Amino acid sequence: MVEFFDAGDTMLQSGAVLPAVRVAYRTYGQLNAARDNAIVYPTHYAGTHDSNAWAIGTGKALDPEQYFIIVPNMLGNGQSSSPSNTPAPFDGPRFPLVTVFDNVCLQHRLVTEVFGLSTLALVTGHSMGALQTFQWAALFPEMVQRIAPFCGSARTSRHNWLFLEGCKSALLADAAFAGGDYTAPPVVGIRAFARVYAGWAWSQTFFRQQLDRETLGLPSLEAFLTHAWEPSFQAHDANNLLAMLATWQAADISAAAPFNGDFAAALNSISARAVVMPCQTDLYFPPDDSAIEVAHMPNARLHVIPSIWGHMAGGGINPEDAAFIDAALAQILSQ
Amino acid sequence: MVEFFDAGDTMLQSGAVLPAVRVAYRTYGQLNAARDNAIVYPTHYAGTHDSNAWAIGTGKALDPEQYFIIVPNMLGNGQSSSPSNTPAPFDGPRFPLVTVFDNVCLQHRLVTEVFGLSTLALVTGHSMGALQTFQWAALFPEMVQRIAPFCGSARTSRHNWLFLEGCKSALLADAAFAGGDYTAPPVVGIRAFARVYAGWAWSQTFFRQQLDRETLGLPSLEAFLTHAWEPSFQAHDANNLLAMLATWQAADISAAAPFNGDFAAALNSISARAVVMPCQTDLYFPPDDSAIEVAHMPNARLHVIPSIWGHMAGGGINPEDAAFIDAALAQILSQ
Repeated sequence: MVEFFDAGDTMLQSGAVLPAVRVAYRTYGQLNAARDNAIVYPTHYAGTHDSNAWAIGTGKALDPEQYFIIVPNMLGNGQSSSPSNTPAPFDGPRFPLVTVFDNVCLQHRLVTEVFGLSTLALVTGHSMGALQTFQWAALFPEMVQRIAPFCGSARTSRHNWLFLEGCKSALLADAAFAGGDYTAPPVVGIRAFARVYAGWAWSQTFFRQQLDRETLGLPSLEAFLTHAWEPSFQAHDANNLLAMLATWQAADISAAAPFNGDFAAALNSISARAVVMPCQTDLYFPPDDSAIEVAHMPNARLHVIPSIWGHMAGGGINPEDAAFIDAALAQILSQ
Repeated sequence: MVEFFDAGDTMLQSGAVLPAVRVAYRTYGQLNAARDNAIVYPTHYAGTHDSNAWAIGTGKALDPEQYFIIVPNMLGNGQSSSPSNTPAPFDGPRFPLVTVFDNVCLQHRLVTEVFGLSTLALVTGHSMGALQTFQWAALFPEMVQRIAPFCGSARTSRHNWLFLEGCKSALLADAAFAGGDYTAPPVVGIRAFARVYAGWAWSQTFFRQQLDRETLGLPSLEAFLTHAWEPSFQAHDANNLLAMLATWQAADISAAAPFNGDFAAALNSISARAVVMPCQTDLYFPPDDSAIEVAHMPNARLHVIPSIWGHMAGGGINPEDAAFIDAALAQILSQ
């Protein structure tokens, strides 16, 4: 069941104030008496709390019988404060830039003010959830005992920014977007956005081996795009898609004080025990970036997911990848 | 100086007849008395004969003092028959699908009818030029002595198709495209097309190392896109961009008889001595595809370009990559 944390008027990293901010979240399990069994598991791009459910369950590493698992929805996703649900004057395209830093500050208020937590056993997440995971560890090193970011990074690389810029440009090419004040969904632009995105989400090998057919039972790439991939994007408000994209493009754990752009110093400040899991074939969070990050982190281990599923290795669809991640989560939680 | 081969009314692979087809081409050097020193070097996507000039010159492998080098312009590029220069009823969006097979058949007519050639010392090309190179060897095995395709493949992979589909969708999202009957260039759609394409053209490492700044002296990725990358696409007619893209998406040396889809058999028929040069970091012609191709070719060697320039390693901009390709061309020509 989804719940809401009313954070009130919130000053953002940019200095802007967003009124009446709400963070939607879902919890699994019970907080123990020592209040030391909490896990935070933020959502990925265009995901909700439900998108993370695959990794949570009895017998899994994220076991609700053992842990109290909080899944906060990222702002912009349509559940938490977003362009689509924020009243004027911050509605639609007037929704301000919300950073990963802002999301994590709000999540910190949620876990401290609502649940009275002073320690987190683990923060973990996929993709933009991994961006938030790194940010948690850099911002609250005393509080975060362990992190397990998968298919993500501590800042958005220049190439990743460029991939996103392509997606954004495709959506904005649709005049029906009307600067964000559309009267009906800009379906052509969202379709283009989805088709651009599709080329990045898996690996070249995934498509060479025709795993799209095997997995989904669809006869062609065209059918895959039309019947499986595009509808998942058309389900989103266009301004929401762009708000989350802006969050992504701006992500950088070193942007805030005291690091002021010193990325190595920001990484070096992450004292949490960490297992960093890029996928071997991820096209926008390639393992090279993770290796560089791990080299600057004092207590981190690089643990590459050996998969041809590319970025989607972290999506929970492929059983082998899900098992790999689950095993790594179990291991780090046992340490 | 550009010259034109008037091929007349031409039946295409699809069965459609395109009237009054012209192939623009440029030659370098002189045909020798034995007529055995000719090289064909077709153009890449959105390129012209001038785009290939970097690889040709005295002292280089493609030396006009030794070889007679013919650079035929691919149909759709605005020089050869294209949507932009074909009269009704085949103008603009009514321009038919022209395949790589069609291009090579026309080039074969050019070199036999105009120059009386019965042998080619080498066919080489970058990217879509490589598609044409493979097609030459599969279609005219008796004629083609050597091939050196770089940053290309013998058929367009499903992933490559998907990358192109993203670019196309971005352009088509601009209503100003008007189904191809635009009254003014759809600049927003072409800009989106270019921005989508940009993420694919180099490697993640290229951007991590900020070689875009180093090479071009521009202060940011945004400046790079706006001032360097987008203008090169805005210089093209939108229907031409899409016609060449359709050629690319349809490329497959095994599509025609006698192979009828048997890709391994088509590759196995390539008797020419071959050096196949993917770039290690090419995101849409990855070396894995080339390795599979070479494994089916009886007389081929895989020779991976060790570069972080991605697909653009074959573009002649990076001196190290250009030297690598030149050395390989010199070696195969000496054999």
